[in-house]
Amino acid sequence: MSTIELKPENQALLERFRAGKKVALARAISLVEDERPGFQDFLHAALETPRFSKRIGFTGPPGAGKSTLVSALTRAFRDQDDEVAVVAVDPTSPYSGGALLGDRIRMNDLATDPGIFIRSMATRGSLGGLATTTKEVLDLMDAFGFQRVLVETVGVGQTELEITGAADTVVVILVPESGDAIQAMKAGLMEIADIFVVNKSDRPGADRLVKDLRLALHLREGEALKDVPAHHGVDLKRMGVPESGTSQDEGQSKGPEWEIPVLQTVAHSGEGVQELLEAVSRHRAFLEESGLLLERREARAAGRVRDVVERELRRVAWDHAGVKGTLAEGVAGIVSGAETPYSLASSILSELLDSGTK
Amino acid sequence: MSTIELKPENQALLERFRAGKKVALARAISLVEDERPGFQDFLHAALETPRFSKRIGFTGPPGAGKSTLVSALTRAFRDQDDEVAVVAVDPTSPYSGGALLGDRIRMNDLATDPGIFIRSMATRGSLGGLATTTKEVLDLMDAFGFQRVLVETVGVGQTELEITGAADTVVVILVPESGDAIQAMKAGLMEIADIFVVNKSDRPGADRLVKDLRLALHLREGEALKDVPAHHGVDLKRMGVPESGTSQDEGQSKGPEWEIPVLQTVAHSGEGVQELLEAVSRHRAFLEESGLLLERREARAAGRVRDVVERELRRVAWDHAGVKGTLAEGVAGIVSGAETPYSLASSILSELLDSGTK
Repeated sequence: MSTIELKPENQALLERFRAGKKVALARAISLVEDERPGFQDFLHAALETPRFSKRIGFTGPPGAGKSTLVSALTRAFRDQDDEVAVVAVDPTSPYSGGALLGDRIRMNDLATDPGIFIRSMATRGSLGGLATTTKEVLDLMDAFGFQRVLVETVGVGQTELEITGAADTVVVILVPESGDAIQAMKAGLMEIADIFVVNKSDRPGADRLVKDLRLALHLREGEALKDVPAHHGVDLKRMGVPESGTSQDEGQSKGPEWEIPVLQTVAHSGEGVQELLEAVSRHRAFLEESGLLLERREARAAGRVRDVVERELRRVAWDHAGVKGTLAEGVAGIVSGAETPYSLASSILSELLDSGTK
Repeated sequence: MSTIELKPENQALLERFRAGKKVALARAISLVEDERPGFQDFLHAALETPRFSKRIGFTGPPGAGKSTLVSALTRAFRDQDDEVAVVAVDPTSPYSGGALLGDRIRMNDLATDPGIFIRSMATRGSLGGLATTTKEVLDLMDAFGFQRVLVETVGVGQTELEITGAADTVVVILVPESGDAIQAMKAGLMEIADIFVVNKSDRPGADRLVKDLRLALHLREGEALKDVPAHHGVDLKRMGVPESGTSQDEGQSKGPEWEIPVLQTVAHSGEGVQELLEAVSRHRAFLEESGLLLERREARAAGRVRDVVERELRRVAWDHAGVKGTLAEGVAGIVSGAETPYSLASSILSELLDSGTK
């Protein structure tokens, strides 16, 4: 691999990063999040030796007790002597650009353990979806050498689904107040979950929710599925895997399947946490034995390349001097009817593509 | 504006679209959602005469009763003789690619009114955020001539925040079971809401939630805000509006402010719906009088141009023959450590930019 020369301050930062200094990790994260000069070169250098942490994603509606559960699991992983990074990803405020503090406060009791690194991040989306930098920060966690990276998202929506695609194992946490399993289906949770957890399961409605979820999962498995469950993040079509028929179709080899468990926990008392750990462990083994882990890593790598290329194309396009002027002048014309977004876009694309993008 | 020649079948479709045939609208939406050949030319032609519907966005957690409230408002708008389009946007299932049925079922009683058009859409995101086509479908609704376009999103997350940025007035619907106002803040709802509604307000906890929300809103207004509330979708910095200080800072003109009301409804009985209608009306008047409506349309136009340009750049990049090969071959190398996503991206960008993108 070619050697890229880093800016001196970034080279120094890289050396401290490789030496395992947490302060250097924090600085590297800021470098990437803020897309400061040389940040991509830094990432290239940091990723030269591939390392893969065991990544677990946690999602579910606000108030489900995700932070409490993540804290409990973090303690359990520490007891196994794993170094753990915990990343709390909050939806970007369209205005403040910063992560909200709520969950950080609850993790304070873990903050003094040197084997745990906690970071809150905004998704800081561009006008569209998950920022590439959020995924790159997770790559930094891998590169730094954590055994475990736990990613917690607030809320349930398209971006959260994507973030959980960055994990190997996705845990979806619901509470009896979440409403019924239909709501879980509506939010697309059935398709991303590797493990369901009904937290606060000492509350009324817990057993019913567990039953509803198990029924809903059972019904899904009986359907003709285009994709095997738990392949989130892997575009099977793009990888040449043929569409599968029903799960009873013996003629086509569909590979092993993962049966999604529905667990019950009372996070603040620790009840059910051991079972959750075991389920995570079993899923890990499944991913390794089935070859899915490798597939998932390749899909993630391909996705990252696409993200980086697209980011650079956008930068080149919008930095182009002529284009900036064309856009600014044309916008009022769209509202008044002198042109449409399509005719203006066409002009801009001509400037970029016909004359070369330099 | 230049005349673009449409494919014959699209020209025929456009004529029926302009004649107000709902079947043609449905077909036009499919054309756009599926990005079928000529879809951008169709949009250009449809948007040649700008029309602007009154757009209201509805968001909130699953189970808040959004569909019921939207149905109630729809009936009220019909009573005023407005033609109404109702768009229910569901998070994309990473697998099925289609919208989920739940909410469509509940709107069946409205389905026979020819003055109402109902459509469910998946956000059908590319690997990243809100699909441009979702926003383009809303543009089609405007072009078709509806007086009102009601956009309902399922779930609360980054994508939902964006969808609501496509609306003029955003209504955030919570229920006592939603948890407290802190959760609303965590989900970024405080910054996108123009109107808060506590639905199912006959249930215990409703009054408390209303109080908490009003307090949280009051506290926010007392802070030094960088942006005036309710400017969602408008990047004030980009438009040259200076950062404002505290709301008590008389030295800087901050323009008029909208005081976000917190209303109570019991949607299935109709209680509170009239007050909601009045609040929507008042917000509309505020937008017009303050000039925000025009600002918002210009920002939306600029955003659309960016979306269209970026979509085409991506298409050109990934259709490029050499690039496809480079990506496919390089991915295994990333996992094995022969290169990083950055070195591979760099190779691809050289192919695209150095030799021209043709």
